[in-house]
Amino acid sequence: MEIIPYERKVFYYETDRMGIVHHSNYIRWMEEARIDYLKQIGLPYDAMEQDGILIPVLAAAAEYKKPFRFGDSFRIELRLVEFSGLKFGIEYEIYKRETEELCATGQTRHAFVDSRMMPVKLKKEYPQIYKGLMERLEKKDYT
Amino acid sequence: MEIIPYERKVFYYETDRMGIVHHSNYIRWMEEARIDYLKQIGLPYDAMEQDGILIPVLAAAAEYKKPFRFGDSFRIELRLVEFSGLKFGIEYEIYKRETEELCATGQTRHAFVDSRMMPVKLKKEYPQIYKGLMERLEKKDYT
Amino acid sequence: MEIIPYERKVFYYETDRMGIVHHSNYIRWMEEARIDYLKQIGLPYDAMEQDGILIPVLAAAAEYKKPFRFGDSFRIELRLVEFSGLKFGIEYEIYKRETEELCATGQTRHAFVDSRMMPVKLKKEYPQIYKGLMERLEKKDYT
Amino acid sequence: MEIIPYERKVFYYETDRMGIVHHSNYIRWMEEARIDYLKQIGLPYDAMEQDGILIPVLAAAAEYKKPFRFGDSFRIELRLVEFSGLKFGIEYEIYKRETEELCATGQTRHAFVDSRMMPVKLKKEYPQIYKGLMERLEKKDYT
Repeated sequence: MEIIPYERKVFYYETDRMGIVHHSNYIRWMEEARIDYLKQIGLPYDAMEQDGILIPVLAAAAEYKKPFRFGDSFRIELRLVEFSGLKFGIEYEIYKRETEELCATGQTRHAFVDSRMMPVKLKKEYPQIYKGLMERLEKKDYT
Repeated sequence: MEIIPYERKVFYYETDRMGIVHHSNYIRWMEEARIDYLKQIGLPYDAMEQDGILIPVLAAAAEYKKPFRFGDSFRIELRLVEFSGLKFGIEYEIYKRETEELCATGQTRHAFVDSRMMPVKLKKEYPQIYKGLMERLEKKDYT
Repeated sequence: MEIIPYERKVFYYETDRMGIVHHSNYIRWMEEARIDYLKQIGLPYDAMEQDGILIPVLAAAAEYKKPFRFGDSFRIELRLVEFSGLKFGIEYEIYKRETEELCATGQTRHAFVDSRMMPVKLKKEYPQIYKGLMERLEKKDYT
Repeated sequence: MEIIPYERKVFYYETDRMGIVHHSNYIRWMEEARIDYLKQIGLPYDAMEQDGILIPVLAAAAEYKKPFRFGDSFRIELRLVEFSGLKFGIEYEIYKRETEELCATGQTRHAFVDSRMMPVKLKKEYPQIYKGLMERLEKKDYT
């Protein structure tokens, strides 16, 4: 299955007085891309929440190489780099569509919990989700 | 009881590439001021939510006269202008602290609902909240 | 020329603890739709800014009829309802894509200024922009 | 000089449907604390921008241990951990005021540039700013 990268235009309100996209918005872009990715691999985020799974963020980071400005569009390619059945980790590359430059990178790490914020053992309790993620870990996306 | 106006500095991330605070953030400032006001009159918002009352916004509006910039602080004076036991309305005046200029005005209108989003009859079910708001309607704040 | 309405999914970070999209985000959605509309009618916002025109917001309002939740998508139809060469006004209808329900309405009003925030006389100084907007005022979009 | 930690209440609009503060907002809190800190040590951010210095973010990261909810307040203690005259690095500890628990940590790294985004040699061109930051590097704040 070929994963389609996540893309959109920069929104005006995402810029700040330095004339570039505010650095906190990249963390939000990464969430948009992550949710789109999970949907593409058959694990839509809203359905998982309805099944009682929450996916809080344990850690998030971004490295800003070149700024984005209003008028630009970005494309995010991501890959699942870690998955243990309790936690998973994703790495992101954020490209400027107009120039194909790698403008930023990022990483997030997540846990699976239930509505009381207690850990969920994915392999045992949601085997289809476990399988879906384990398969992605072994694939290479965006060849 | 004297109401203390709500005040704070403009945050950097609230500005946009026009060099001024993005217009959508004034709606957020009005929420901060509203929540602070409800707390001051003895009706803290988080406690009301714990009692099963939600207060969704029915309408919100702002009129932008002079811009705010990073380095400025704002002060919001608000008054309860409408209260029916089912709905209430608030008007806001947003001043620049440094110059005392009126830079923006706003209005919001709200309903009281329960967790199923059904209307709550405040007078009957939460008489103390009803009384607290009715008293404010008749007072003049910020003489 | 047929105008294509602006559409996208609700983002997770746009929701709040009431489980619905926070009311301030509708003002941001209206900006996204307005900028997309201006691009479709041949007046891209970033190009106008490069030509020295800024378009600050004079007023913004929204009326919230039914909430949006994560998992929903919205569609915005807008029309130019006022244009004087110095100011223009837009009305918005925000529909839930999944059900075609009208969930919110909005209005914004704008001025044309230069980089010193002084009014720009569009008809005289940027006749092509003036003409583009005047034509839209007379058309009916989204028949 | 004793540094006063940065503190405020959680805002309602900072929460998401998981009932906790959205992880992207911690990056914004760190910016608020950083700007407050720079002001306390005599290097107010808006004044530096007026002198032609911009301070873009090179990297930002956060580790989320315990969530914040509406009704909570946070306190941020930060320390300058790196300063080379061209770049500086800050570490943040984010405590819940009500319980004194360490709920999150963070790190940011920054460069000094001019309005053309070219590096500024702080020691040579702005010796007073260089001196102010070098002094903080050697001190221990929040004993």
